[in-house]
Amino acid sequence: MTICDKLKFDDKGLIPAIIQEQGSGRVLMMAWMNRDSLEKTVATGKTHFWSRSRQAFWMKGETSGHTQEVKNIAFDCDGDTLLIQVEQIGAACHEGYRSCFFRSVEQGGGNFQITEPQLQTPEQIYAKK
Amino acid sequence: MTICDKLKFDDKGLIPAIIQEQGSGRVLMMAWMNRDSLEKTVATGKTHFWSRSRQAFWMKGETSGHTQEVKNIAFDCDGDTLLIQVEQIGAACHEGYRSCFFRSVEQGGGNFQITEPQLQTPEQIYAKK
Repeated sequence: MTICDKLKFDDKGLIPAIIQEQGSGRVLMMAWMNRDSLEKTVATGKTHFWSRSRQAFWMKGETSGHTQEVKNIAFDCDGDTLLIQVEQIGAACHEGYRSCFFRSVEQGGGNFQITEPQLQTPEQIYAKK
Repeated sequence: MTICDKLKFDDKGLIPAIIQEQGSGRVLMMAWMNRDSLEKTVATGKTHFWSRSRQAFWMKGETSGHTQEVKNIAFDCDGDTLLIQVEQIGAACHEGYRSCFFRSVEQGGGNFQITEPQLQTPEQIYAKK
């Protein structure tokens, strides 16, 4: 895929992908892609990533059913970050929140607060099968 | 700053920070912070980063005047990514676009298109002084 030639993958062959919900503008998550997962994302219209902790290829929603349908893929001026607009099925966060960014730092930086409702518990998400 | 203890800085002491325009929801840029730049961001209400290429601390807008006033700092479930809501003065991108994500991949991944107007040229931004 020739667009990959415009992108800078890091020394581990990875590029960060910011995932944004197209309708609401809510930033849902950030995860890493390698060239294979980006190509699979473009080819299938579903987001695919590379897990650094598990060293494994994964499709978002493959276990939870909470897939992401790709609407747009943008990249930044340096070509080293992706911004992907999606339609999100269910909760994006494995902790059951719509967005992984469900905690905000309080004034002064001493503590945080939870800023959105938990839609499901992880047990509800992952025990369905 | 105790909130830093909730965060996971990588093996270089860095954490990626997604910068989003609060009013519009437009994702403007992604840059890296170390603990010092996050503490300075919280203390001053202006975004500060760490440049990996220049190995230097920088305040967004210090040369261009295009500063970012911090409205909210969120962090994700893994504690390894920040999402910062700002009010942006001028263009966030050093190439003169409102957002660094001004190019989108076309269907099939073979090419890209520019999706927003260039507000200023880099020469206009950086020759002001």
